[in-house]
Formats: sequence, structure tokens, C-alpha cells
Amino acid sequence: MRQEDPVATTTETDAMRRAVALSARALGATAPNPVVGAVILDAAGAVAGEGWHQRAGCPHAEVHALRAAGDRARGGTAVVTLEPCNHTGRTGPCAQALIEAGVARVVFAVADPSPHASGGGATLRAAGIDVESGLLADEAEAVNIAWLTSVRRNRPFVRWKYAATLDGRIAAADGTSRWISSAESRADVHRLRAEADAVVVGSGTLVADDPHLAVRGIEGAVQPLRVVVDTRARITPAAPVLDEAAPTLVAVGKDADTAHLPGVDVVRLPYAGPAGSAGLDIDALLAELHARGVRSVLLEGGPTLAGAFVAAGAVDSVVAYLAPALLGAGPHALADAGITTIAQALRLDVTEVERFGPDLRVTAVPTAPQES
Amino acid sequence: MRQEDPVATTTETDAMRRAVALSARALGATAPNPVVGAVILDAAGAVAGEGWHQRAGCPHAEVHALRAAGDRARGGTAVVTLEPCNHTGRTGPCAQALIEAGVARVVFAVADPSPHASGGGATLRAAGIDVESGLLADEAEAVNIAWLTSVRRNRPFVRWKYAATLDGRIAAADGTSRWISSAESRADVHRLRAEADAVVVGSGTLVADDPHLAVRGIEGAVQPLRVVVDTRARITPAAPVLDEAAPTLVAVGKDADTAHLPGVDVVRLPYAGPAGSAGLDIDALLAELHARGVRSVLLEGGPTLAGAFVAAGAVDSVVAYLAPALLGAGPHALADAGITTIAQALRLDVTEVERFGPDLRVTAVPTAPQES
Ligand SMILES: NC(=O)c1ccc[n+]([C@@H]2O[C@H](COP(=O)([O-])OP(=O)(O)OC[C@H]3O[C@@H](n4cnc5c(N)ncnc54)[C@H](OP(=O)(O)O)[C@@H]3O)[C@@H](O)[C@H]2O)c1
Ligand SMILES: NC(=O)c1ccc[n+]([C@@H]2O[C@H](COP(=O)([O-])OP(=O)(O)OC[C@H]3O[C@@H](n4cnc5c(N)ncnc54)[C@H](OP(=O)(O)O)[C@@H]3O)[C@@H](O)[C@H]2O)c1
Repeated sequence: MRQEDPVATTTETDAMRRAVALSARALGATAPNPVVGAVILDAAGAVAGEGWHQRAGCPHAEVHALRAAGDRARGGTAVVTLEPCNHTGRTGPCAQALIEAGVARVVFAVADPSPHASGGGATLRAAGIDVESGLLADEAEAVNIAWLTSVRRNRPFVRWKYAATLDGRIAAADGTSRWISSAESRADVHRLRAEADAVVVGSGTLVADDPHLAVRGIEGAVQPLRVVVDTRARITPAAPVLDEAAPTLVAVGKDADTAHLPGVDVVRLPYAGPAGSAGLDIDALLAELHARGVRSVLLEGGPTLAGAFVAAGAVDSVVAYLAPALLGAGPHALADAGITTIAQALRLDVTEVERFGPDLRVTAVPTAPQES
Repeated sequence: MRQEDPVATTTETDAMRRAVALSARALGATAPNPVVGAVILDAAGAVAGEGWHQRAGCPHAEVHALRAAGDRARGGTAVVTLEPCNHTGRTGPCAQALIEAGVARVVFAVADPSPHASGGGATLRAAGIDVESGLLADEAEAVNIAWLTSVRRNRPFVRWKYAATLDGRIAAADGTSRWISSAESRADVHRLRAEADAVVVGSGTLVADDPHLAVRGIEGAVQPLRVVVDTRARITPAAPVLDEAAPTLVAVGKDADTAHLPGVDVVRLPYAGPAGSAGLDIDALLAELHARGVRSVLLEGGPTLAGAFVAAGAVDSVVAYLAPALLGAGPHALADAGITTIAQALRLDVTEVERFGPDLRVTAVPTAPQES
């Protein structure tokens, strides 16, 4: 056993697996907080309580699980996917709650990288509690990757999704594209939306498709913030994306005329280039979203805006729905990303390949950490 | 059990699996013949001999297997991947050889669709032999798909292979492309070449890459015919593709000037459009290759020629090596294929997805039989 390997019992490993699964239930619902799951084992190692953080402002996972465990927590073990927090936010610090409940041992998967919340492990140790970290860290990190990335990069995690043919086209030469991807793939996109805090499209997609962007067909889903990147405020007040189904933010240029958009949540951002010819500054857009508590963004395109995100080093994950079809003409999945020669290609690692109906869904992440 | 299901013992099924594997050893070496494998079981069901058709002009699989079995064939069972032939070609008819060897039973996988060779099953039955067909037909058909397709379509089977980024680019904006795909993918292309009777490229690829197109790194491989589709005979006598490593055919337009190519195998073909502006007629090219005994073609591009093959309904299989990288600019995997609207897209079924190093290899076939 390597020194870094956490020392944990099989029961604790099983409990951690369960805690990770519980945490995933709240993906898309906890911003600006992480997703966290917790399982309390009693002194004999039996499951005494479980819980997960369901929404910002609601109790943390540990508190839910401790409540469920009641007295059985005393002398027991708390198994948590993230290092218990040390700060007093809208709810009390979890480290303190665990100490008060009298647990003898705390096993967590991933250390909390946020400056104001970390240190929970040290607080627990100082209180004489046996603390172990790193158990199933990879699984826990994968579920929490959006939030962890947002803390590390100080901007939201960005997942770019697109649907294209095997030859990389998103529409035929005449612009028709219904349906390139299968019903199964389109249903999966709603799942991705439900897991995201915000869904972003460019004004080109707005004008071409007049999309709605809300989550449909997923029970209990928290609607993401819909974001339209629309330098010249071309959106009309009757656009479906401005309906009541979900909140919407329209990002426009500093001197855009928005008189036709009373009551619409509009943010003015700096231009990416001279006189707005290159659209809005992507870093400024992400900073604005971050300030609004958005920790994960689903970038739904189109190709022009996706190119700007790639050029800004702001794509953390790629989800490609590849339809087994060939077109040989038509617009591409990705437009200019400032890459002119092969050595500059954005290299990825494929992390997953799955079938969705006839389509392939390929998930990939940049090989090296991006500068942002 | 459905009525069509073949009645076969486990021993026979095992023998057929072995025969299919044996047949695959000769892929790329038997044109214009199919690949065939055979296993002889003695009267007690023990393996008495095996064989496969190794090269046109050499003995058929059944003959090899019967020789190996000797007297043990008498009263035994011949398990063969393809219906034993009924005609006397360069070697005698196999049906006759099986009768003379005294086998009591013949189990074959796939019926022979070729008009001059079929009827072997009937001949065997007429001789009082118990004949069963259809055992592991799907597996046997898959291995022999190139030859079977060539018989059914009366032209060579065409497999189009390309290597592209996830966003469908085959090179960066400045034309650089080394290496889009991984060493593992490039090695696999040599395997595809070895399995093909001919490898085809367009003059654009010739001029851009000056490729060699011979098989490297595969012991015992039969070199395919290298074919350059070069309307205006732009090839130079010093081109690597004209070296001694493998035979080469240069297809040119009816009135191309080929005075600079003495000793080169040149074929003059009709134009696809007026005055050669659209290159050479693809059907005429395939007919010429078919007449030369080519049963399987590996189309290695580039995108323009591949577009013409797709437009001609002459792509039977697609092998895409997708490198996990994004470019956002540069030439595409597939150029104009005459498809202008989404309803005309060439729809495929994905039959296999495999990893080759970091790349994905996606194999797909057109959903409906193509007109040719
Ligand atoms: N298959 C798919 O997955 C998928 C997904 C989405 C869209 N689509 C298709 O994509 C097409 C539209 O794509 P598109 O490329 O024209 O439009 P787009 O990427 O949606 O929007 C591009 C526009 O966004 C605005 N923008 C603002 N800031 C920008 C920045 N920093 N960089 C780049 N653009 C910025 C620009 O216009 P202003 O500056 O004037 O606002 C730009 O023209 C439609 O046909 C749609 O159906 C397909
Ligand atoms: N990544 C890959 O898998 C891959 C594979 C191959 C090539 N490539 C790249 O592709 C690029 C070259 O592609 P390309 O599209 O320019 O060239 P290409 O497809 O190799 O050749 C096209 C040329 O073939 C000739 N041709 C003859 N008959 C034709 C017909 N019926 N239809 C179409 N063309 C016909 C035409 O020129 P003439 O009529 O004048 O002869 C045409 O311009 C190179 O950069 C190469 O590196 C990439």
C-alpha cells in the first residue's frame, strides 16, 4: 500500500460510494455550493443516517446525515465526499456539528480547495477525531468537477456540447439540421442542462433557432440561468428564451440599445475587440456569471461562440453527440478558435464513449490544464 | 428454434468459429476469390484437418482441409464458411472433392451468390450428403463482406477511411496535419491496406502528400494495387507511389498527356463531367478495377475524391479515426458529395467503436443498401 492511500474499511468504502451517488442527485441545484453526500456509520459500522446537500441555503450533507443518525452518531464514523467545511455560512460549520455529535472518525474523499471553507480536517483533528482523507477521491472529484474547477480557476466550469455528423457538420448546406441527432441524444442534453447552473448561446443561434433553452422532461430539475450572448441586443421581447420557464440574462455590449427590452435582465460587458466587431469579452462574461453564483456553464454554441471560448482557453469539457451520417457540406461544429497550425490544436483526452440511440456521445477533456 | 435456424452440434459450431478465423487470415490475398476456411471433423467429431484458401490459383480451403484429414474424412463432416463451389476453375470443384472423400455431412455458413460457382449445396445433396447451411452466417458474412458485396454489386467493395479531429478537420488552416492521428491508428491503416486488393487516392492527395501507399510492418502481407486517380496525369515518374514496392495503376482522362510516364500502367477513363472538370467517372473506375480482379478497395481520400464516391453511392463502409483534438479551421474530412439538405444525408449505422491509442476508430455502414 502506498503511503498516500487512505486507510479505510470495506464498510467505509461502500459508504463513500453511496455518499458519492447521493451527492450527484443535486448536480445543478446547489450553486454556488458544491454537491456533497454524507453517510454516518454507527460505532458498530452500520449505516445510521445519510444525506446530501440539496440546495444553497439548505443544510449541508453532514447535517442531514447527523439528524437522521441521531444518537447513533456518537462514537461512529462520518463518511463525506468533501472535506467538512470550517466556516459559518448560511448554515453552521459542519466540522463543529460533527464534533458536537461525538463522531470518533471522519473519512472524506476530496479536500476543500476554497480558501474560506478549508481547514475542516484540521479542526476535527484538533478536537481529537481520527481523520482520513482521499477515499474514492477520483469518483468524488468527477461528480464535483464543475464546482472544484470553478474554485481552482475562479470562473465557472464550462462544458461545451455540440451535435454533429461524423464528418463534423452541424447542418446541411441549405441550413437544415432537424434532426441531426437522435431523440435519445436530445433527451440527454436536457440532463446536461439540468446539471448546469447556466446555459449559454450566441446571438447567431438565437437568430437562427429561436431556442427556449429550459429543461424539459426531468422531474424536479432546477432550471438553469439562460444566457444569450448578444452584443447588439438583437433579441426581441417575444423571444421564447425570455419566457417565464427559467431566468434569463442577456449579455450585450457597452453601448447597445436595449430600450426594447424593459424588464429584461441585461448586463453590459466590454468588447472582445475594437468596436464590438469580435463580440463580447469571454473572460468578462464568465466573471459576471461567477459573480452571480454560476459555477457550471453548458455552452450550447453555436460554432462561432464556441470558437471564442476555445480561443479564450475556457472550455473544460467537450460533449460531442456524433450522428452516424455524412453531409460533405454545411457549417462546422467549431468555427475559428485562433488555431492556425496543427501544433496549436486543442488536444483532448477521451474520457467516455457511449451510445445514445444511433449516435455516439464522446466526452473529452483538454489534456493539459488550460490557462484562463 | 425458428425454422431457419441451422441444426448443428456444439462441435460443429466450434469448428465453424475456427473456420471463420482461418478464412480471415487470407483477407487481401485471395482476389478475385473469396476468403474461405474449412475444418474436417472425423466420424467421431474430432478435428481431422483444417485449411483455408490462401491465394487465387492455390487450392481451395476444402481441399487443404481434406488433404490434412486424409482417410479420417470418410464418414465425417466438412465445416466450411462458404458454400462449396460447383465449378471447375483453376482448381477442381470442391463439391466433387468432398463427395470423393466420402464425407457424410457438410455444414456451410453462407451461400455462394456468384452465378458460376453456386449450386454446390445441391450437388452435395444429390450425392446423398447431409447438407446444413447458415451456421454462424453473420460472422462468416462479416469476414467475407468485401467479396460478397462485390458479387452482389458487380463492382469492388469500397471502404473509405479517413483520419480527422473530433470537429471533422483533416488538417489545420495552414495545411499542416502531421500527426492528427496516433501511431496506433496509422499502424491500423496498414492492416486495412493489407486486407484490401487496391488502395485509391486522388490527385490532390498525390500532389499534397506524395504518398507511398504500400503496406509496411505487416509480415506476409500481399501488397495491394496502388491506384492514383489523376485526370490530367500530373504524377511525375519519380513519385514514390510508382516505386517497386507494389504494383500501381494511374487512372487518367481520355486525352491526358502521358508521354512522361513510359512503362507506367495507365488506364484512360471517361470523364465524370464536361471536359474533365469534374474528374473521372467513378463507376468506370470501379468497373476497370473489377475487371482487373480487384474485389475490395480502400479509399484513402482525400475529401474531394471521397465526396465523389459518396455521390456515386459507392461507399460501402466508413472507417473514421477520430483524434481527440479541436482545430476550428482547416479542410474537412468530406467535401462536396452532392448533398444539399439534411434529408439527403448519407445515414450510417455504427458497427464498431474502438480505441487506438488516444484515438477513436468508428466503423459504420450505410443504413440502406446503396444504389450503384
Ligand atoms: N448542432 C449544434 O450542436 C448546434 C448548437 C448551437 C447552434 N447550432 C447552429 O449554429 C448556427 C449558429 O451558429 P453561429 O456560429 O452563427 O452563431 P453563435 O455561435 O450562436 O453566435 C455567434 C454570435 O455571437 C455573438 N458573440 C458575442 N460575443 C462573441 C464572442 N466573443 N465571440 C463570438 N461571437 C460572439 C456574435 O454576434 P454579435 O456580436 O453580433 O452578437 C456572433 O456572431 C445555427 O444554425 C444553429 O442551428 C448548432
Ligand atoms: N486525413 C486523411 O484521412 C486524409 C486522407 C487523404 C488525404 N488527406 C488530405 O487531403 C488533401 C487532399 O485532398 P483533396 O480533396 O485536395 O484531393 P483528393 O481528394 O485526393 O483528390 C482530388 C482530385 O482528384 C481528382 N479526381 C479525379 N476524378 C475525380 C472525381 N470523380 N471526383 C473528384 N476528384 C476527382 C481531381 O483532380 P484532377 O481531375 O485534376 O485529377 C480532384 O481535384 C491533402 O491535404 C491530404 O493530406 C487527408
